[in-house]
Amino acid sequence: MSKENELSIISLGGKGEVGSNMIVLEYQNDIIVLDTGTLFPENDCFGIDLIIPDFSYLINKQDKIRGFVFSHGHEDHIGAIPYIMDKLKAPLYGTDLTMGLIESKLNDFGLDQKADLNVIEAGKSLKLGCFEIEFCHVNHSIPGSVAMGIHTPEGLIVYTGDYKFDQTPVNNPQTDYEKLSDWGQEGVLLLLGDSTNSEREGHSLSERVVAQNLNDAFKLVQQRIIISTFSTNIHRIQHIFRAGQKAGRKVAVVGRSMLNTIEIAARTGYLKIPDGMLITINEAEKLDPDKVILLMTGSQGERGAALTRISRDEHRNLKINPGDTVFLSATPIPGNEVAVGKTMNKLFSQGAEVIYHEILDVHATGHACREELKMMINLTKPTYLVPVHGEFRHLYHHAQLGKDMGIPVENIYIVENGKRINLTAGKLELDGDVSSGKIFLENNKIMPVDSRVLDSRKKLASNGFICIIIKNKDNSYQTDTEFITRGYMDLSKKKALLHKAKSLVTDLIKKANRENIGEWPVVKREIVDTLNNYFYQKENHSPLILPELINI
Amino acid sequence: MSKENELSIISLGGKGEVGSNMIVLEYQNDIIVLDTGTLFPENDCFGIDLIIPDFSYLINKQDKIRGFVFSHGHEDHIGAIPYIMDKLKAPLYGTDLTMGLIESKLNDFGLDQKADLNVIEAGKSLKLGCFEIEFCHVNHSIPGSVAMGIHTPEGLIVYTGDYKFDQTPVNNPQTDYEKLSDWGQEGVLLLLGDSTNSEREGHSLSERVVAQNLNDAFKLVQQRIIISTFSTNIHRIQHIFRAGQKAGRKVAVVGRSMLNTIEIAARTGYLKIPDGMLITINEAEKLDPDKVILLMTGSQGERGAALTRISRDEHRNLKINPGDTVFLSATPIPGNEVAVGKTMNKLFSQGAEVIYHEILDVHATGHACREELKMMINLTKPTYLVPVHGEFRHLYHHAQLGKDMGIPVENIYIVENGKRINLTAGKLELDGDVSSGKIFLENNKIMPVDSRVLDSRKKLASNGFICIIIKNKDNSYQTDTEFITRGYMDLSKKKALLHKAKSLVTDLIKKANRENIGEWPVVKREIVDTLNNYFYQKENHSPLILPELINI
Repeated sequence: MSKENELSIISLGGKGEVGSNMIVLEYQNDIIVLDTGTLFPENDCFGIDLIIPDFSYLINKQDKIRGFVFSHGHEDHIGAIPYIMDKLKAPLYGTDLTMGLIESKLNDFGLDQKADLNVIEAGKSLKLGCFEIEFCHVNHSIPGSVAMGIHTPEGLIVYTGDYKFDQTPVNNPQTDYEKLSDWGQEGVLLLLGDSTNSEREGHSLSERVVAQNLNDAFKLVQQRIIISTFSTNIHRIQHIFRAGQKAGRKVAVVGRSMLNTIEIAARTGYLKIPDGMLITINEAEKLDPDKVILLMTGSQGERGAALTRISRDEHRNLKINPGDTVFLSATPIPGNEVAVGKTMNKLFSQGAEVIYHEILDVHATGHACREELKMMINLTKPTYLVPVHGEFRHLYHHAQLGKDMGIPVENIYIVENGKRINLTAGKLELDGDVSSGKIFLENNKIMPVDSRVLDSRKKLASNGFICIIIKNKDNSYQTDTEFITRGYMDLSKKKALLHKAKSLVTDLIKKANRENIGEWPVVKREIVDTLNNYFYQKENHSPLILPELINI
Repeated sequence: MSKENELSIISLGGKGEVGSNMIVLEYQNDIIVLDTGTLFPENDCFGIDLIIPDFSYLINKQDKIRGFVFSHGHEDHIGAIPYIMDKLKAPLYGTDLTMGLIESKLNDFGLDQKADLNVIEAGKSLKLGCFEIEFCHVNHSIPGSVAMGIHTPEGLIVYTGDYKFDQTPVNNPQTDYEKLSDWGQEGVLLLLGDSTNSEREGHSLSERVVAQNLNDAFKLVQQRIIISTFSTNIHRIQHIFRAGQKAGRKVAVVGRSMLNTIEIAARTGYLKIPDGMLITINEAEKLDPDKVILLMTGSQGERGAALTRISRDEHRNLKINPGDTVFLSATPIPGNEVAVGKTMNKLFSQGAEVIYHEILDVHATGHACREELKMMINLTKPTYLVPVHGEFRHLYHHAQLGKDMGIPVENIYIVENGKRINLTAGKLELDGDVSSGKIFLENNKIMPVDSRVLDSRKKLASNGFICIIIKNKDNSYQTDTEFITRGYMDLSKKKALLHKAKSLVTDLIKKANRENIGEWPVVKREIVDTLNNYFYQKENHSPLILPELINI
């Protein structure tokens, strides 16, 4: 419990991990939640599509929650809301684009009517209980991104969200230095700062450079242009329309998610599509190749995305034509490198030219690099620094950088998810743990998947199973057993192996019947051990062995 | 079949793919095989550890095989030999270090006595049937690497193996320009050239820079140094001993594979360990931290490697001490980024400082970048270019580069695995396909894993299975069914779901008995369809449904 006159800050997410995107601020009777995002599972979380933070800490504190406040509309900041809204009812706040994306997401889940959606504006402020939140425009790879200056009874907390300082942004003002500077002069007690690019020296590439590169490259292409980027990178999409117009081309958008985001961005005024520039795929097919841009998702090699399907020649309407030029206007997110490489190989092998980050700067990161992290610290002059957003090594390097910038080392904390930190009388202290963890989602549902189920999947994935059916009649195990197997090997081609395995089981059964010591759990254990050893000796590995007793 | 007076060249490996490391040269009664390497499987090849080329094309041509000739001792060039040797008996040829590594590998398989192992030398030549092979020293990330100039009845073929041009190598002469230049002047009909780094502009980093960086960095470290690199990177390992000596430290080697390679390299003279510099882990533990270097594998986040285990605090003898500095003297191979990132996060979170490629140049690639690829083409002046080693996009960019260097586009071929190209009368032509593909290995054994088994594993991995046992007595299906499930969900927590599924099956059984149309395959199909639909409707996804009939 948070004590009287104590402000608690907790990141909810996997225990022993860092970098959750759901941060709880709690003071007496008031709670606000900053962002509520999803995570992608690691490779060995078989069958799991998404991970959301375990929010059980908040369940009994429902009445205190004054609102969920979102910094921007990326999935890792808004994605968990549909799964949480049923359990935690509270108003949602974000800029118009962010709320448009949240509304569309809730709509998919049939939840939009239930939600209390509220649009906030950069430059304005919002009072939620004892918290007064000022919003500050920042550059990021999606428009409508804000940092927050949160005035609390214990002092001013700055939460950067995701940001960078782009000196020459496209269709977008610079990050609001004045606001950050005002906060710094007022006195920032704590900075919760994005750490994603803390390993990268220097300054992030400007969106202007990408825009110029696309302008130049588009002019050189003589046949179709296919370009893939994140559906939420509206600045990039705006620029693709503009560069297309300059190059005398029209743009057809491929794929529902991209169309949906474009529609929301156009409605909220972030995207201005010149008259007649947006055409359908059918219209595009009728134009000469040098008049066409096909805009789509798939820059991460995502299964099911338009470009991925086209690269595999599995798309319903579209095929690669030799001479097409494909731009991957995005860099692979860690973990996606192989999938992206495969997409590129398939595009090349079908005769396309592919332009990607190794070849030309056709993407700019949305996150502050080291010089920008320094600028944020210099502007806000925080007493305490808690690096957020990133893996441990990113938080570590952000912490080191903070130290180099003069923040006393005892004022810098790397805080694991589920650990509470408290601010009181101008002091920050680590407190105990709260209930936290990960919730697994399968196909958009919270599933009762526990670690035993996941362990079984791992074993099944690598070696399959053999289920041994043993019949029990009048308290005697029958020796005619049945073996059912999948995912191990084709045992019909390994008759001797199967035969011997069966005879080992028969021997154990006979012994159990004979010695009358045949309690099933004991027999079962013996069968598992015997067959594990046998298959391991013969084949260097064993499937999952599952003896089952059937009463007949 | 290769025709009279025709030289055939075939890369054996996965169909529709490129970049195999097993190249067959065939002329009338003579065959030589250039390299015979393993591949790593992709993520969705569950349970598969390694892939080797399907070599069935050679089975009936055994008598013609004059030898396997190896360019260097990396796994992707020698790794498949133990699995092939039993089936294809032929002498093996490579430099002393390459043969030392092959011998050690064969020894692990109990095959070293059977093998006909032969050491060749750079600068010398070897006659195998109608082929005369000259060996040319090249720089690469393992010593004893050679390119080959293969004099054939149809002309001179140059196979580069893996190479780079390091102008300032460490413990190693430069790539033998003179030999390459001699071949160029003699007239190279075909260049089979390494394409791995064809996307990288400029020139590869020199090993000298890495050496200097390690020297400088070692001097600044005040406690233990832990350094991880590839066990075969003997130049790097040599330098670590040297830099350690300069810094007043001794080196303990952790892990069997690293010790084994060091022993072979020392025996063949590639590695010179200064007296007293190599100590045991026990001796290291007794020294002051600033006197110690621990050298180990794990730079790729490999499960089971020393550094990986230490990072997870799962190593028997070693733990991270706060203040340790860990050098990852290697960049992640594509696909390993996430595993390497995890290792780093765990090291940082245990209090180590970690130095890696993002922070300092502590690794140099072993492969030629674009300026070096150009140099190779300028030196050898080939009539034909066939890019080898790499993914499709690497071969593509190598081909484009060849075109830019003036090789006529009709003389450049990207050849898929299993496609035969023929050289005759100075002309290269694409011919038909030969039998080729991939062989899967599980735990060092060739396994009869077919695509059905792999498909089952994929399904089991994501959703597990439900096996439904149905008893058959006197030609009547019994309604008391048993459900066995693993990896789906904990059905004991989903009683209603299970109950309804059972009742659906019971209904189908009753109907089958009643209508007397109950052929088992028909009933089975109905159960599968019904339960698939039911679980999909209820839970958005279905496990593998396996009805099994048991006669009682």
